[in-house]
Amino acid sequence: MSGNTQPIGVFDSGIGGMTVVRAMMERIPFENIIYFGDTARTPYGVKSPETINQYASEITKFLLDFDVKLLIIACNTMAAVAYETVQDISPVPVLEVIDAGARTAVSTTQKKQVGVIGTPATINSNVYARAIHKHDASVRVFSQACPLFVPLVEEGWLDHTVTRLTVQEYMKPVVAERIDTLVLGCTHYPLIKPLLQEVAGQEVFLVDSAEAIADMTADILAEQNLGTPSQEPPEYRFYVSDVPYRFQTIGERFLGRTLTNIHLTKL
Amino acid sequence: MSGNTQPIGVFDSGIGGMTVVRAMMERIPFENIIYFGDTARTPYGVKSPETINQYASEITKFLLDFDVKLLIIACNTMAAVAYETVQDISPVPVLEVIDAGARTAVSTTQKKQVGVIGTPATINSNVYARAIHKHDASVRVFSQACPLFVPLVEEGWLDHTVTRLTVQEYMKPVVAERIDTLVLGCTHYPLIKPLLQEVAGQEVFLVDSAEAIADMTADILAEQNLGTPSQEPPEYRFYVSDVPYRFQTIGERFLGRTLTNIHLTKL
Repeated sequence: MSGNTQPIGVFDSGIGGMTVVRAMMERIPFENIIYFGDTARTPYGVKSPETINQYASEITKFLLDFDVKLLIIACNTMAAVAYETVQDISPVPVLEVIDAGARTAVSTTQKKQVGVIGTPATINSNVYARAIHKHDASVRVFSQACPLFVPLVEEGWLDHTVTRLTVQEYMKPVVAERIDTLVLGCTHYPLIKPLLQEVAGQEVFLVDSAEAIADMTADILAEQNLGTPSQEPPEYRFYVSDVPYRFQTIGERFLGRTLTNIHLTKL
Repeated sequence: MSGNTQPIGVFDSGIGGMTVVRAMMERIPFENIIYFGDTARTPYGVKSPETINQYASEITKFLLDFDVKLLIIACNTMAAVAYETVQDISPVPVLEVIDAGARTAVSTTQKKQVGVIGTPATINSNVYARAIHKHDASVRVFSQACPLFVPLVEEGWLDHTVTRLTVQEYMKPVVAERIDTLVLGCTHYPLIKPLLQEVAGQEVFLVDSAEAIADMTADILAEQNLGTPSQEPPEYRFYVSDVPYRFQTIGERFLGRTLTNIHLTKL
């Protein structure tokens, strides 16, 4: 029988990567998924590369013990800093959000004018611009750090006047550059997509990196004949290193459905 | 000669405690101050008590090596969780922000109706209510978590429409309780004091815990004859475990003046 029912491992420094799980639940609805969120040690953005690599390697080993068939780095910081570390120890394919978002942006933009929004750590590291230029050096990239978006999303103010005003303020310089494509370079941002679309303008294509990596995952499963043959409801398991404030509420908002099968684990 | 010129040690999980340094610079302008901010491991609010106690003990030993005459815990989380640990290993007096704020609130309120605002970690731990009730069990305490204030202050939007709307939203239930005293239970909040005063109403007394602890420090220096006899400009030294994004800008905003004499140190 072709294909296999082994789970796909998805990991993030916290809860944000659940938007990737959500996109995968929709795109490849029969695949089993195991998620690890390092909620005890989040945020990674401020940590040294050595520490981030060490954490990424611990998480990778943890997920490999479940015999996953594919690993997805849903965290922008780990994707930027620790991709090679993860790939070196993983016998299965490793995909990551930055490359997924960059590929989609390059194949979408007509004017070759792309905006990228993300956390200060992601934007300052310039990883999206580098990833985009690897695929097409002629694309002009306009980046904007949006430090308030993550706290606003975690507060649940997804359609609040405060969030609308904040989006307008951050987006003003990016919109002024007449971009036709905007990369949502943070796993939290899909939750404010309607607001971002409204402020960016309906003619701007929003690259949701969660959807981009779900598409890439579907492609690689098909190519490498790794997709599950099952048509049964799959199993979703969520491992976290801490159960932080309002975890259930925030997690369900990210996941878009009830969050069960949660396990607390220390690595 | 009475008094001594040894420095006062002030510590926090990050940059926020610099508002305490600022208040001390104004209240006791000739005292030398050594600050430690654990910027590499911030935020502490999500960590386990064991970890917080361990970090607090490392920081205490670090500052004791400078022969400080007094230790100030400027961090609400460490004050709540690790006060006894710090006191156990410290041969010099230890003051902390929560008790300072609670004392001032109790001695200020006429109606015995006190509001407390802070981060979710501080508010959920109920430490301010407990500290207030230790001094006067008849005071009614109304608490409100304000998770967006720290990110708004760090973004520097101190007088921005977004911040004003956010303050109005969070303060609505607290103001409805007809409090006459409001405790600013987070070291970041003194920076938005004008906005808080405006929304709370001019008749509400704001307890700035940075000022409260500066007053308490002045009292204990006088009582124990520990004040410096010097009338020379003092030395201020700042130690941090990491130099995060926009550290200089944010630090100067908190300190209210140019930030020099910064040292990076791993504990």
